[in-house]
Amino acid sequence: MKQVEIIWAHPRSDSLTAAVVSNVKKQLEKQSWKVSQLDLYRNKFNPVLQAVDEPDWSDWTKTYSSDIMELIKELVDKDSVIFIFPVWWYSIPAIMKGYIDRVWNYGQGYGPKHTLRLQSILWIGLMGTTEANCSALGLNTSMENQLNVGIADYCDIKDSKTLILYETLAENGNYPPEHYANLLEQARLYTAEWAKARQ
Amino acid sequence: MKQVEIIWAHPRSDSLTAAVVSNVKKQLEKQSWKVSQLDLYRNKFNPVLQAVDEPDWSDWTKTYSSDIMELIKELVDKDSVIFIFPVWWYSIPAIMKGYIDRVWNYGQGYGPKHTLRLQSILWIGLMGTTEANCSALGLNTSMENQLNVGIADYCDIKDSKTLILYETLAENGNYPPEHYANLLEQARLYTAEWAKARQ
Repeated sequence: MKQVEIIWAHPRSDSLTAAVVSNVKKQLEKQSWKVSQLDLYRNKFNPVLQAVDEPDWSDWTKTYSSDIMELIKELVDKDSVIFIFPVWWYSIPAIMKGYIDRVWNYGQGYGPKHTLRLQSILWIGLMGTTEANCSALGLNTSMENQLNVGIADYCDIKDSKTLILYETLAENGNYPPEHYANLLEQARLYTAEWAKARQ
Repeated sequence: MKQVEIIWAHPRSDSLTAAVVSNVKKQLEKQSWKVSQLDLYRNKFNPVLQAVDEPDWSDWTKTYSSDIMELIKELVDKDSVIFIFPVWWYSIPAIMKGYIDRVWNYGQGYGPKHTLRLQSILWIGLMGTTEANCSALGLNTSMENQLNVGIADYCDIKDSKTLILYETLAENGNYPPEHYANLLEQARLYTAEWAKARQ
């Protein structure tokens, strides 16, 4: 049985991001994956790396603050992580950036003999604007490169995919309900294929 | 007289990042710029955007939390901002990402009739590794695109430059003192030219 942790970030638990989390979780469970989740906001995760948690380059076995060590412990038996987040400024929200900064630290997430042994990551980002707008400026490619190469590959995780759900924000008011239903279905279908290929 | 705010992030005030801040500041003052600084760490800036500070798309005049409004007020008379930071995971640290997420909000940093009227941004990032390592993976280009286009251009600031100081971390222990002196001098020289061109 494959084990995955969904790590997600949104200030509101009634958000579209939260609905994506719930749909993705249901789909994975249907395919018999064991799913845990880390809701960074409700968990009141502190994203600010302080001096006490800076890497000690001469000691990859360094013990970090207790909240970091607990979050690492949650991941040691996992095969995969799925990050779900609203795209803010063409990258991940600060609370998720700080999760990487602090928790996936030297000796834990990366470096020789690092603790985490994840095989794959899936990044699901909810982007307000259109794919055409992003592509014209290369901003989806930049973000994907930072996530897949700058983070995942740096942690020796070669299998890192990115799914961007575009047009989550209408210019004036809301899209019709079908629009959001389509986005949720897109996330569910992608997850189903992703999980099937990694069963 | 040109006015600039240096916004910087590092857990330690005895860091190389802090030394760059101090050198850049001195150089700007020598060229008669009026310099203020926002030290995000010592200011205990909270980078986590909560629901109360989400944009209201129907109201660009929305008043955000008082700490946000104060930081915006600090910037209204500024011509430029210089961000100085250690590059973590090929992007800015969480505390700085959260500064953008929260403070440069809809109606303040971007959107129709936004408050800020900055003409230029300079991003100075301290990168542990070599330029060759970064270039091979396109990670410097990705980061520059996110900062110059994804953030600055999104705020209608067309003049955005990035200076990356490479090799700030030695593989084993420290580089000789001249190495760090060279990095500081590189930042000083770049700043001098940058300021001269925008006098």
